[in-house]
Amino acid sequence: MDKALKYLDAHRDPILNELFELLRIPSISAQREHVNDVRKAAEWVARKLNALGIEAKVFETAGHPLVYGEWLGAPGKPTVLFYGHIDVQPVEPLEEWQTPPFEPTIREGNLYCRGASDDKGQLYTHLAAAEAWLAADGTLPVNVKFLIEGEEEIGSPNLPAWINEHRELLAADVVVISDTAQFAADYPSLCTGLRGIAAFEIEVRTGSADLHSGSFGGAVPNAIEVLSRILTGLHDEVGRVSVPGFYDDVDEPSAEEKSSWSRLPFDEATFIASAGVKATWGEPDRSVLERIWTRPTLEFVGIMGGHQGQGHKGIVPARAVAKCSARLVPKQDPKKVLEAIRQRVMQLAPPYAEVLFHCGHGTPAVSIPTDSKWVAAAVAALEKGFGSRPVFIREGGSISIVTTFVRDLHLPCLLMGFGLPDDRIHSPNEKFSLKDFQRGARSSIALLQELSVR
Amino acid sequence: MDKALKYLDAHRDPILNELFELLRIPSISAQREHVNDVRKAAEWVARKLNALGIEAKVFETAGHPLVYGEWLGAPGKPTVLFYGHIDVQPVEPLEEWQTPPFEPTIREGNLYCRGASDDKGQLYTHLAAAEAWLAADGTLPVNVKFLIEGEEEIGSPNLPAWINEHRELLAADVVVISDTAQFAADYPSLCTGLRGIAAFEIEVRTGSADLHSGSFGGAVPNAIEVLSRILTGLHDEVGRVSVPGFYDDVDEPSAEEKSSWSRLPFDEATFIASAGVKATWGEPDRSVLERIWTRPTLEFVGIMGGHQGQGHKGIVPARAVAKCSARLVPKQDPKKVLEAIRQRVMQLAPPYAEVLFHCGHGTPAVSIPTDSKWVAAAVAALEKGFGSRPVFIREGGSISIVTTFVRDLHLPCLLMGFGLPDDRIHSPNEKFSLKDFQRGARSSIALLQELSVR
Repeated sequence: MDKALKYLDAHRDPILNELFELLRIPSISAQREHVNDVRKAAEWVARKLNALGIEAKVFETAGHPLVYGEWLGAPGKPTVLFYGHIDVQPVEPLEEWQTPPFEPTIREGNLYCRGASDDKGQLYTHLAAAEAWLAADGTLPVNVKFLIEGEEEIGSPNLPAWINEHRELLAADVVVISDTAQFAADYPSLCTGLRGIAAFEIEVRTGSADLHSGSFGGAVPNAIEVLSRILTGLHDEVGRVSVPGFYDDVDEPSAEEKSSWSRLPFDEATFIASAGVKATWGEPDRSVLERIWTRPTLEFVGIMGGHQGQGHKGIVPARAVAKCSARLVPKQDPKKVLEAIRQRVMQLAPPYAEVLFHCGHGTPAVSIPTDSKWVAAAVAALEKGFGSRPVFIREGGSISIVTTFVRDLHLPCLLMGFGLPDDRIHSPNEKFSLKDFQRGARSSIALLQELSVR
Repeated sequence: MDKALKYLDAHRDPILNELFELLRIPSISAQREHVNDVRKAAEWVARKLNALGIEAKVFETAGHPLVYGEWLGAPGKPTVLFYGHIDVQPVEPLEEWQTPPFEPTIREGNLYCRGASDDKGQLYTHLAAAEAWLAADGTLPVNVKFLIEGEEEIGSPNLPAWINEHRELLAADVVVISDTAQFAADYPSLCTGLRGIAAFEIEVRTGSADLHSGSFGGAVPNAIEVLSRILTGLHDEVGRVSVPGFYDDVDEPSAEEKSSWSRLPFDEATFIASAGVKATWGEPDRSVLERIWTRPTLEFVGIMGGHQGQGHKGIVPARAVAKCSARLVPKQDPKKVLEAIRQRVMQLAPPYAEVLFHCGHGTPAVSIPTDSKWVAAAVAALEKGFGSRPVFIREGGSISIVTTFVRDLHLPCLLMGFGLPDDRIHSPNEKFSLKDFQRGARSSIALLQELSVR
């Protein structure tokens, strides 16, 4: 491993120059005029993998192509599947970029370019690690597979099907993904949980048609009044969800996680400012991080009813709808949660209204147990790469591809994000710290070593 | 008067034939292709008035023309101003008409035609009354003025300004309008009150932009949740408005009105069926008619916030708006009511949200005191015309032109509707009972006589 680390340090510039080649390809998956650029980027990565000795191929999908490559020269050793993506977000508004979006530029220790952090730069840490091992040692300590897609920024519409059709090809012991961020600068992080989601709609009908508010107002029910009363009944005054059974299966985080979180540089004022709100809200006996990472929520996503246009209209509306969702935490069953909410909604429905509960899609949360050997390997690797012990963090949202790996392939995932929260992914002037690129690549070199001895 | 009544009975057919001429003109004010038909109808009415000896002229407005006519041959006697309109509603869907919409047809004692009840037929009762007096007696017992517009069905956009520019021309003692309905068949009715309205919007902002419900949900306020809680706080659970001071200036109806209402053939099941609701709602200690006629309301007219489109979106919305209105009853000041609601809304606003209260237009209610000599004249005239004592009723909505007469010209209005609730005005197969046409015209003959002796 030391030879690989030395190779990495000695070849910093040629490695970066190769990454620059990839970054210069404007592989925007959402824009039709860049369809060939996504393909070019895929071909570039396949070529690079093959050059390293990792047998790779471009695969067609119904949308943009993807790249799959493998090196299986370590029989008896674990197999690690790296996932990443080479497509990027659109770059508008162009005038806000200090340097052209597809011209890699180094300023104050940061690499500026669309895709620098999300995800070409982070992905490349693992290619650099493989290169370092193969160049320095002529071999890799474990078997590796690469699955690199071109549609992540448009929601990976074709990947889950492709994965399920190529289960044997993708057989592995652990998945490694570097497409998130450290909690803060110099806080190497391992993400151990993602919330799930369960969507639903509440529809209230109080009559067959809107009524004239002069001729009927005051003597007939109002759909918006009924819906408001139902929605109000779903939380208590301080922000706890008022649905019997809602918190039943919710686990407390492990002592290790809690102690890890207490060391995080979380500042509530900074959080409030970044959210653009006047104050936090929610379960008062939980910290902000606990609320977002470990607690389920019930959110009102949209509401509509009655007159939506300009000006005023003299009606008593007969129909109102709220679009809602619950963010779920590990062990919660979307169906069970939706049923609990449905029962509460029906309990709140007055006899003079017809209340309909429409269930939407549901995805359970993802939990990555902190006591596995894979996590132990990642912890050791990050400590080696960054020089400090990593923190366990979680993510309040879902990453759909992680759900696919965990739920369809039953693979443990290591979410090792090397980016920073202020990398401005999806915005002008996206950047990636060169120091973190180097520390990420070192961590990846160490991870291959650590995985080989578990 | 007896001669006039005899003339009316003897000339039933020629009078109806003349009304048919007017009804055949498709004077739909809302449809551009009928712009000349509205003018034709105005010219027809002006010609008719002049033929009767009532000097009339077509006046131009920024929109459709109107007709003004006067007969001032009774010096020292009161002056009565008749208001009506010769424009009609569109006739679509055509296939639902049993006979062509502009071909007056008599079936089972009813006259079917667009405009039969709203308002050509009702208006014509007063022309027939004037004709009967003038033909039989050569004179009218009071001075009369006619103001007949061509834009009522599109909201009378130009009439209030015209009225205010012609205050001297319109000087009168009382206004008579037959553009409403009897409470039920054989219940000659005098409408003694119209509710006013005060419109407002409640806008809630919990942040500068919608937030990702994964990354922030559960720890930041939700604009829809805040708005729902505010709306829910504006009524108690049974439907009373929970705004301190809201009912302060609300008058109880007079004993005479209450006793009149107790005689009305009101059936709650029929009301529920006609409204298309499952049950009534509102102040439990008030009858349905009291709720609509004598009580102010606070209605939610429209609500919007967050994701309005198809499907789901993972956001915590930062903004939500409710469009609302209060229906007002006599003595309530729109400004005072809006201020009371604003204070209550602000009291319900949580510290973590910015809550804006936008005042909209306000129109006070109209009250027609039942103890005036004009009302006494109308009561006597209706009793003469219908053979039974009229009932006092009210209207839950506003009639904007009545508000103009009452508030701008300070004129008492007699709202003597001869139509029936099932006349299907604005719908296919509009009708007007021939019996009610005759009883209306008799009432109008009697009204001129009654007004002359007050």
